[in-house]
Amino acid sequence: MMPVSEHYYAVIMAGGGGTRLWPLSRKARPKQMLALVDEHTLFQNTIQRIRGLFPVERIFVVTVADQARELQAQCPEIPTQNYLIEPAPRGTASVVGLAAIAIQKIDPQAVMAILASDHYIGQVELFRQLLVAAELAARDGYLVTLGIDPTYPSTGFGYVQMGERVGSYLDRDVFRVEKFREKPDEAQAQAMLAAGGFSWNSGMFFWPVGLILDEIKRQMPMLAAGLTDISQAWGTPAAEDVLTATWSDLRTESIDYGVMEGAENVVVLPAAGLEWNDVGSWDSLFDFLKGDENGNIIIGGDHLGMDTHNSLLYVNQPHRLIVTIGVEDLVLVDTGDVLLVCRKDQAQRVRQVVSALKEKGLEYI
Amino acid sequence: MMPVSEHYYAVIMAGGGGTRLWPLSRKARPKQMLALVDEHTLFQNTIQRIRGLFPVERIFVVTVADQARELQAQCPEIPTQNYLIEPAPRGTASVVGLAAIAIQKIDPQAVMAILASDHYIGQVELFRQLLVAAELAARDGYLVTLGIDPTYPSTGFGYVQMGERVGSYLDRDVFRVEKFREKPDEAQAQAMLAAGGFSWNSGMFFWPVGLILDEIKRQMPMLAAGLTDISQAWGTPAAEDVLTATWSDLRTESIDYGVMEGAENVVVLPAAGLEWNDVGSWDSLFDFLKGDENGNIIIGGDHLGMDTHNSLLYVNQPHRLIVTIGVEDLVLVDTGDVLLVCRKDQAQRVRQVVSALKEKGLEYI
Repeated sequence: MMPVSEHYYAVIMAGGGGTRLWPLSRKARPKQMLALVDEHTLFQNTIQRIRGLFPVERIFVVTVADQARELQAQCPEIPTQNYLIEPAPRGTASVVGLAAIAIQKIDPQAVMAILASDHYIGQVELFRQLLVAAELAARDGYLVTLGIDPTYPSTGFGYVQMGERVGSYLDRDVFRVEKFREKPDEAQAQAMLAAGGFSWNSGMFFWPVGLILDEIKRQMPMLAAGLTDISQAWGTPAAEDVLTATWSDLRTESIDYGVMEGAENVVVLPAAGLEWNDVGSWDSLFDFLKGDENGNIIIGGDHLGMDTHNSLLYVNQPHRLIVTIGVEDLVLVDTGDVLLVCRKDQAQRVRQVVSALKEKGLEYI
Repeated sequence: MMPVSEHYYAVIMAGGGGTRLWPLSRKARPKQMLALVDEHTLFQNTIQRIRGLFPVERIFVVTVADQARELQAQCPEIPTQNYLIEPAPRGTASVVGLAAIAIQKIDPQAVMAILASDHYIGQVELFRQLLVAAELAARDGYLVTLGIDPTYPSTGFGYVQMGERVGSYLDRDVFRVEKFREKPDEAQAQAMLAAGGFSWNSGMFFWPVGLILDEIKRQMPMLAAGLTDISQAWGTPAAEDVLTATWSDLRTESIDYGVMEGAENVVVLPAAGLEWNDVGSWDSLFDFLKGDENGNIIIGGDHLGMDTHNSLLYVNQPHRLIVTIGVEDLVLVDTGDVLLVCRKDQAQRVRQVVSALKEKGLEYI
């Protein structure tokens, strides 16, 4: 494989506090810190996937203070100064901006790969090839988004409408983005799937650092001004205060809506066959984890099942026997303090549970 | 109410080691020791039901050594010497025999009421009236069995076929028993229900102590011989050794098959409207516990339910939140070391689980 250039940097967005895998994911232990697929956490797997392509010096992690210590413990090989700490979460636009000024200080020629920390990717070698191709496209002056081949009419993702082919990198065609489409309803999703020429928006992006900062300046001047202040204070004793002051005034915005939808020269690199999954809910695990002969996914715990089918059992309590009789299409998650029993097709509703607990002022979140 | 005579004794059979409410019921903590209906255990409720009718001196409890201490702790008002300890469980025939010789020593005129320790009875006042009527029938020289009005074609109970009316006690008719019928299959059960004139065999009996000992002597001579030895040693230092030696040779036999089926002068006292339940499985709790507005029975634990219906949740772990989403007709029992999740109509199968665990040599039983 062609090695990536020495001006290519990876930025892992690892500050999310997702609640969709509650009760396993918690405020203090979000999804990226969980070992769901194998004995490594999603964050560790994310780093592992790009090791070899990127030396650790060129891997940055953006997170929040609450989570930094645990992430550093999970991946101590990343230099401490490469963990960039947001004073508070303000959406992905600010994450990208913060990483951009930090990397620009080191290397104004840098191309950044913006990567999620909590996704599953089945075809790692393909992913690495796409990373290489994406850098080449970005070097040609494009803002590149990685497009996922839609496999069903999902209403949970944004979509990207592909236009004309603008080039080919490592034999992979790249297309102009005609339009970003927010999460559609069922009918719209089916129409897009039927029409063809749409990708899911993976939330992974590639661009020259100067180009994205220009776009931020043009479309998000408040953020750009703050970033300029931070950049000037970077490396001085005032840096943290300036960062905190800037962040307290920022409104939360995603890079998709804040920048990409209005940007010039946006292209999509389709990633068919990647076996990508955003691990967005408990039932999503059935998409990429292999069940046993009864279709059950058993993670942890002693289990004795009778007539138990197509169910997920996640137990992180040792010395505990789980017995299931006549159980079908159920998700069962036992974290000791919480037991969740949920019909598989209603797994999305754990978000409502977390909201309800918040309202009631209960713990467990 | 007419008071019972001073020659009337209650014998509570409390040595059972039922596994049908596993994982809550265990070898060391069988069903009668559990608080399922209210804050009292089934054993405590059994005693409470007959208090007032019987002074504690005339209440005997037959159990096994493993269980005696806990039962005494639950009902310390019963005199210690009234707890009769079987060296090992040998079925209800030996329980009745042991109690008979102990009581005969005190009062040769005694009538015994043989009562289960682990049943639910909704209409306590009616039950007490039946106890009084049953003594009167027994005094007329009958072996009396309490018959439960069958409410559905159960295949889990034995049946009693009623013959001619032999008398009336406190305005309650008593009928000769034509035949005992073992647990039927579904078709036989439906035929009996359609034909009428059948009762479920409650396993509760009433008889003069001399009469039952005569029947044991006639039909179970081995047991009778052992009981004679024990009776002679009763109150001497040799008593325990004789009891142990006798019990080690006994085969396990129920009073129903060992004596009642072949006995003379057996009558049945029908107990319509008693709201009796043998608490034979988790789903039986739905027959007598009132569910909430969604038909759910929640015992212990914090519960947050969404679209949860007709389900049973039993949790004896504090500080634990149970969340159920889209759950219907499920039984969920959490004892800390074991979590059972079972479709309601398969609750009988926990016995298979216990057998499987035994075979595997696992704990948890």
